[in-house]
Amino acid sequence: MKRRKFITVAATGLAAGSLAAPAVAQAPGAVRWRLTTSWPKSLDTMYGSNEAFAKRVSDLTDGKFEIRIFAAGEIVPGLQVLDAVQNGTVEAGNTLTSFFIGKRPAYSFDAGLAFGMNSRQQNAWMYAAGGLEMVREVFKKDNLLLFPAGNVGVQMGGFYRKEIKTVEDLKGLKFRIGGIGGTILQKLGVIPQQIAPGDIYPALERGTIDAAEFVGPHDDEKLGLHKIAKFYYTPGWWEGSAQDSTLVNLTAWETLPPQFKSAFEVAALEQNLMMIARYDALNPIALKRLIAQGVQVKQFPRAVMDACYKATQETYDELSAQDEDFRRIYTAWRQFLAESNQWFRVAEFVLDSYRFAAKPL
Amino acid sequence: MKRRKFITVAATGLAAGSLAAPAVAQAPGAVRWRLTTSWPKSLDTMYGSNEAFAKRVSDLTDGKFEIRIFAAGEIVPGLQVLDAVQNGTVEAGNTLTSFFIGKRPAYSFDAGLAFGMNSRQQNAWMYAAGGLEMVREVFKKDNLLLFPAGNVGVQMGGFYRKEIKTVEDLKGLKFRIGGIGGTILQKLGVIPQQIAPGDIYPALERGTIDAAEFVGPHDDEKLGLHKIAKFYYTPGWWEGSAQDSTLVNLTAWETLPPQFKSAFEVAALEQNLMMIARYDALNPIALKRLIAQGVQVKQFPRAVMDACYKATQETYDELSAQDEDFRRIYTAWRQFLAESNQWFRVAEFVLDSYRFAAKPL
Repeated sequence: MKRRKFITVAATGLAAGSLAAPAVAQAPGAVRWRLTTSWPKSLDTMYGSNEAFAKRVSDLTDGKFEIRIFAAGEIVPGLQVLDAVQNGTVEAGNTLTSFFIGKRPAYSFDAGLAFGMNSRQQNAWMYAAGGLEMVREVFKKDNLLLFPAGNVGVQMGGFYRKEIKTVEDLKGLKFRIGGIGGTILQKLGVIPQQIAPGDIYPALERGTIDAAEFVGPHDDEKLGLHKIAKFYYTPGWWEGSAQDSTLVNLTAWETLPPQFKSAFEVAALEQNLMMIARYDALNPIALKRLIAQGVQVKQFPRAVMDACYKATQETYDELSAQDEDFRRIYTAWRQFLAESNQWFRVAEFVLDSYRFAAKPL
Repeated sequence: MKRRKFITVAATGLAAGSLAAPAVAQAPGAVRWRLTTSWPKSLDTMYGSNEAFAKRVSDLTDGKFEIRIFAAGEIVPGLQVLDAVQNGTVEAGNTLTSFFIGKRPAYSFDAGLAFGMNSRQQNAWMYAAGGLEMVREVFKKDNLLLFPAGNVGVQMGGFYRKEIKTVEDLKGLKFRIGGIGGTILQKLGVIPQQIAPGDIYPALERGTIDAAEFVGPHDDEKLGLHKIAKFYYTPGWWEGSAQDSTLVNLTAWETLPPQFKSAFEVAALEQNLMMIARYDALNPIALKRLIAQGVQVKQFPRAVMDACYKATQETYDELSAQDEDFRRIYTAWRQFLAESNQWFRVAEFVLDSYRFAAKPL
């Protein structure tokens, strides 16, 4: 019954042909899907990567597999993407699955964990060390198939009206932040707020909140927060990298011919690479503009970082005690991370350290 | 004339059908290509990524576009890949284009430059900041189209029989290294040697050379160099990241239908992401094994790094003076790198620094 809902078989020129039965049997009919996202169209990088994804799938299938992309709110609100895909309202959705860790804590291994893997480590774990399989098992419980489909890298720590000089300064801070970061910061007295992107500016202006984190310079600049809060903190330690994902309703997925599955998979993978490439090209330019407008880039003090790191470990221990999926994946994840860090310290980090400290070539 | 050589149109079931002329006109015939590589099959990551690439192209085209992969020496030697593609001996080749900078210095911007971009910066520059277009203009002069198709990340600095304690220790050092690193090190008295992978071990064992760099722990371990030289130096500063590329004969490319072009392009992009993911998963394990066998990981002393950095800048100035293509691209490349470094220092590097120094989660 679901199948009929998901597939639109258009009569192609080929299928309309009156002979060549074996060829017709092999030729896939046209498929039209809807993919809803958690992003407004103004997020050109996150929303835009979905348009590029749909174009690639279409090109790879000679236009036979068409995926229409919808912004947050067009079909369902941005924070209902997972439910909409699970329920079959749409066949696919693109989101940051950390929005949904209230449903299943183990979802956090998909988007990324606080003090967790950087984007390269995340890809290595997901694609080449069994991470994707482990994460997919969790999503499968909700009839979902998951594809990594983008990455932001390390985000900024947000805009603050006042400086954060000590751990005490976090107490009572009304801070716009979602996901696991909010859960962790509560331990240090922060009052986390979930606020939709369009509502952040007025909330910060009116003083309903004291600070807000969003993404990085390229996206943050568009919100205009730098006009009302001058301190721009780094790093956004709540995600070593923020991985964007595309979710597919498993029942819908199983109706696809192998060629279409391959096209979908590789097009998602392409955006996993391309989204961070675009961010890495756009963020430096936006950061320069923000600094030119008087933004002061500040680093969280060491004592604040240490307190956050400790609170993070406590949170992971608690989640491991509460949730079997979290515990199982966390054990594998932390072992991979520890070994990976050892290697990154030896080569990448040593050269990056030298390069970043040196006078430009 | 060339076209006939490149394409094998097999009679598909569809084409053999007696009706439906418009459908037949749209249905692409089977295409068979040969792709030769610079890699022995023992390089499972570099050679293997080409097998995965061919499988993806086949899956995306329902088996109609078949690409056969050849190891170094099967059709042409590893260092003749570029010529073989240019001459039309094969339609495509996979290599590190830094092997061919003697032909055109500007090729170096493809594989990566000494003290240059890390793999994320390289992707950002290539895909999202005009780098790929600039690099392709150079390869087009040789009737070649280029696709980034893999990355190794920062390599190791190689195995040395004796420690490198001062800049003086580089004088007269017979060092197996190719590409721009060899050119730069000559300024400091190093005698660079180009030696095929299979010949490195006996050369180091007999003392024909004093040191040898190859790739990173995963590939280096297989050569067994750690059995005869205990000092394993970091970083391999001669490439901020080593990008592997697939070259296509432009005349052959133009015969492909759009769907096959799209499949080829996205499959190369997939391997660009997957190769480094595999290396990042495999290198930590190999490094641990090497250390367990007594290998001593050493960092090049600061004075040595500074001398190499200075020699690098001199080399770039000389190449800019000699070669117009190099000068033009270098100007754009260094500006992008300087701005990118500013941004990476602010977010990624700050969090990586904290994470790598902290006690594991």
